[in-house]
Amino acid sequence: MANPFANRRPRPAPTGRPALDAILTELATADIELEERVVRREEIYRGRYVVVEKDAILRSDGFQSSRDVIVHHGAVVIAPLDAAGQLLLVVQYRLAGNGAMLELPAGSLEAHDGVAEEPEATARRELEEETGYRAGKMERLGGYYSAPGFLTEYLSLFLATDLAPALRDRLGPDEDERIRLVRLHWRDAIEAIEAGIIEDSKSIAGILMLARRLEARGL
Amino acid sequence: MANPFANRRPRPAPTGRPALDAILTELATADIELEERVVRREEIYRGRYVVVEKDAILRSDGFQSSRDVIVHHGAVVIAPLDAAGQLLLVVQYRLAGNGAMLELPAGSLEAHDGVAEEPEATARRELEEETGYRAGKMERLGGYYSAPGFLTEYLSLFLATDLAPALRDRLGPDEDERIRLVRLHWRDAIEAIEAGIIEDSKSIAGILMLARRLEARGL
Repeated sequence: MANPFANRRPRPAPTGRPALDAILTELATADIELEERVVRREEIYRGRYVVVEKDAILRSDGFQSSRDVIVHHGAVVIAPLDAAGQLLLVVQYRLAGNGAMLELPAGSLEAHDGVAEEPEATARRELEEETGYRAGKMERLGGYYSAPGFLTEYLSLFLATDLAPALRDRLGPDEDERIRLVRLHWRDAIEAIEAGIIEDSKSIAGILMLARRLEARGL
Repeated sequence: MANPFANRRPRPAPTGRPALDAILTELATADIELEERVVRREEIYRGRYVVVEKDAILRSDGFQSSRDVIVHHGAVVIAPLDAAGQLLLVVQYRLAGNGAMLELPAGSLEAHDGVAEEPEATARRELEEETGYRAGKMERLGGYYSAPGFLTEYLSLFLATDLAPALRDRLGPDEDERIRLVRLHWRDAIEAIEAGIIEDSKSIAGILMLARRLEARGL
């Protein structure tokens, strides 16, 4: 990748709501006044999904320091919702959590010739690979950084609806993934979050963002 | 740390709700059947907050592979809510996001002689360092992994109330942190999430979990 920070998203446009627009002004000011300019970048390790860097930074007040940055070129998380209000969730073993976890389907953007694919294409591929379903409709609901203190990963969140089994030429999971499909009504998924059964921040953020939208529609 | 995966939390007890308890059974089965046992662990890099490892794993079906794991010994995220319903949020420059971000206060557990401190102690310290306030009441609301696909970081979420300025002997931010305090009513914080102004998964998950609790109380 030419620019490891190319996943920075533009700020939202003013909303017309004073409390929020004051925050946008504050963020734009902080972008400049608190900026940490990278003056030297050292690549420590290049793994399959991440690159580990040690960056020397300089602030406008003259302060110098170094930051460990884990570079990841982005991912998607998908909330697949069927006509009965059931979410398609996946169970996988997560070595980093030392156990199995219940999550929304998700996956990393693939890069082709150093250019990351469009998130919606990733979402369609990962949905089929991980659940065996294809979506008639794929709608972006938002996005978020996993751990912006040291990890560049940004996840785009999609709502997938009009689901149908991928009967012909189904894409399967990657060889090193073993995935089990679980169906849970979105209201039960909220309870699973509150009970501590769903412990994955991207899934919690995604399910609760979706729930607000469904509740606003009176569902 | 003796065991880099010591932050694995025990599973919740059965809830009495069939849909959720079926999931707990599925997770317990997957813990065993999908387990990835580490057969060789190689430390690649030891940074200030993270250790990068390359782990060779073996599954029960004989499949072997290697996993990059970013080891982080855990952190807290705090939702400080004042008597007027305003959340105390922080703006910081995030190199990994290439800009300033609006987040709940948060910070890493400190380790003393290889033993990580209690999350509530971290929450009290970080709240004071980052906002200048102390909490009369600190209540655990839940917790989540930042990016369980490759990062061991687990965040405990606390609600901090009965806030008062730390007038005497105030703890300040670390030397390498520059932080600005922003107040936003929790209802406006939800709008900031929906507008894409808050883009940090721990803050989105934490604010939306808190919002459900406040709404359930009729607030």
